[in-house]
Amino acid sequence: MPVRPIEWIPEDSSGKLIPGHIRMIDQTSLPEGLKHIEMDNLDEICEAIRMLRVRGAPAIGIAAGMGVVAAIQNLPDRTTEQLIVEAGRAADRLALTRPTAVNLFKALDRMKATAAAGASLAPDALKERLASEAMLILEEDREMCRRIGSHGASLLADGQTILTHCNAGSLATSEYGTALAPIYTAAEQGKRVHVYADETRPLLQGSRLTAWELMQAGIDVTLICDNMAAQVMKEGRIDAVFVGADRIAANGDSANKIGTYGVALLARAHNIPFYVLAPTSTFDMTLKSGSEIPIEQRGPEEIICGMGRQTAPTGVRVYSPAFDVTPASLIAGIICENGIARPDFGTSLRLMHK
Amino acid sequence: MPVRPIEWIPEDSSGKLIPGHIRMIDQTSLPEGLKHIEMDNLDEICEAIRMLRVRGAPAIGIAAGMGVVAAIQNLPDRTTEQLIVEAGRAADRLALTRPTAVNLFKALDRMKATAAAGASLAPDALKERLASEAMLILEEDREMCRRIGSHGASLLADGQTILTHCNAGSLATSEYGTALAPIYTAAEQGKRVHVYADETRPLLQGSRLTAWELMQAGIDVTLICDNMAAQVMKEGRIDAVFVGADRIAANGDSANKIGTYGVALLARAHNIPFYVLAPTSTFDMTLKSGSEIPIEQRGPEEIICGMGRQTAPTGVRVYSPAFDVTPASLIAGIICENGIARPDFGTSLRLMHK
Repeated sequence: MPVRPIEWIPEDSSGKLIPGHIRMIDQTSLPEGLKHIEMDNLDEICEAIRMLRVRGAPAIGIAAGMGVVAAIQNLPDRTTEQLIVEAGRAADRLALTRPTAVNLFKALDRMKATAAAGASLAPDALKERLASEAMLILEEDREMCRRIGSHGASLLADGQTILTHCNAGSLATSEYGTALAPIYTAAEQGKRVHVYADETRPLLQGSRLTAWELMQAGIDVTLICDNMAAQVMKEGRIDAVFVGADRIAANGDSANKIGTYGVALLARAHNIPFYVLAPTSTFDMTLKSGSEIPIEQRGPEEIICGMGRQTAPTGVRVYSPAFDVTPASLIAGIICENGIARPDFGTSLRLMHK
Repeated sequence: MPVRPIEWIPEDSSGKLIPGHIRMIDQTSLPEGLKHIEMDNLDEICEAIRMLRVRGAPAIGIAAGMGVVAAIQNLPDRTTEQLIVEAGRAADRLALTRPTAVNLFKALDRMKATAAAGASLAPDALKERLASEAMLILEEDREMCRRIGSHGASLLADGQTILTHCNAGSLATSEYGTALAPIYTAAEQGKRVHVYADETRPLLQGSRLTAWELMQAGIDVTLICDNMAAQVMKEGRIDAVFVGADRIAANGDSANKIGTYGVALLARAHNIPFYVLAPTSTFDMTLKSGSEIPIEQRGPEEIICGMGRQTAPTGVRVYSPAFDVTPASLIAGIICENGIARPDFGTSLRLMHK
């Protein structure tokens, strides 16, 4: 039921993955219209990542894995050794597309290691082996999201309403998303679930992406501006808040899209439980607390003219933190693929992380 | 130092107000550029109010008073009786421009009463009398705002930083505004004051108007998205919050632009004092509490495609309350032209209201 932002389509039904091509939703065409794009070579996939046609850390990792496959699948008459070199070159090019994307580097390291480990294979077998690894990256993400969905759905009763911020859904991953996974899972279980989506300034991932993918999946969604969340909570419309995370410290402090911390404070003021949903790969046990997480600042353009016309005076000073850190004390639970960690997170996260 | 959004300019320096014309900032041209428009007849002023070239309840009232003057000033050879009828007709037309604007109706009633009370005057004297009354509406607003500024500035120390939401500044009034009045006053007193302005979705009065007018006046202002306020407070950047109000109940509960209630909760969570600044004319002592204030809902267009391009899926459900009510328990003080009301507001507002 959830949309699939990126898939690998084999050219024939022989069971072989190669030759094949990538089929992805062009997210730059959202929300106005749904456009799929197909690509079978490295240049196209590099451009797609760079231009944010595919975005969201897990989805970028998946695209990168497939990008390596696309790069080598059409190279005829190469020795295995030459293919390993070409795979490494492709990985190096892909690594330049989004210089701060951790999942991207992890996926590329994994593809390079797979290539290196396949030195004894025949060339065609190595290509198929790399394609299998890329599929595995996608499948692992799909399974991880489903497990988050299953754990999270256990918290949802029929008829309940969730508020979410930003997009931690299908479009950021392979299929179910993280924060939205329990919504899809609960709907599959026959529960009626409703979602309020913060539009999420400045880049509007909530209105452009979250509202769109939930509507596509037939989930009841209502869009609000970020500053309406308090009123919506006050009116008793929200049963729980579900958000994603980019990085979670050992004590449970969670970094996520700017505005998340404010939502957590508002939820606390209205006695609404606030949950963070993210895979264990976002747990950074080397960080004692969220105070060690640096807050990236973004440029003024997104706020001044982010939506087609200039909405602030030329030259105005802008402060634009990209993320904030929600302290563990405001979090009712951290839902990962291994279960629901509850406070004290110092202990529970360590157990989940194993 | 603050900008003046609307003024009456006599044609000569004889001391007579008539003939004259209205000079206003065309607020629809902000923030891209500053454009003044001049008008000396009723059609133009009706169009300006209807098209939001002038906005903000007090400024609309001022414009309406001047509109009556513009309507009758160019009518030669009329008897006093005929002029009274014409003033009434002009008022009736002006009343249709913004059907829910209370200040508009108050100003028009006042102009009609002035006309009726001038039945014994010669025609030219009646015209001058009406022009004086329109000037008085403006002057009273100017004085009221200055007094709010003076009371509010007493709370501001050199170097302090205020966070504000929406636009309750010059552009909404005659000159000093309400929430921004203490900023202008403190700056005149030589204090360095800094302002963080919430952009205030969906209509962006904070980025389009507040940031613009503060920059025009040489006040240090930083623009943020609404969802960044919590982080800015957490970083210790804010000393107090100043907001306006549309309507204040007898117990101190205050209705203001959507998002204000959330800011009040965030301020409380960070131990930052939250002040409401508004004239006693917004006190509605017939309302026991804010729960009696109806919350207007607005249409989806402002959220879906408010800024030049479509930012949400076609057909998405939108919830868009125009206002919210901040409970008195979150308010450190209500600053009006008569002073600073402190809790318990049940008593202090009644004293201020006299």
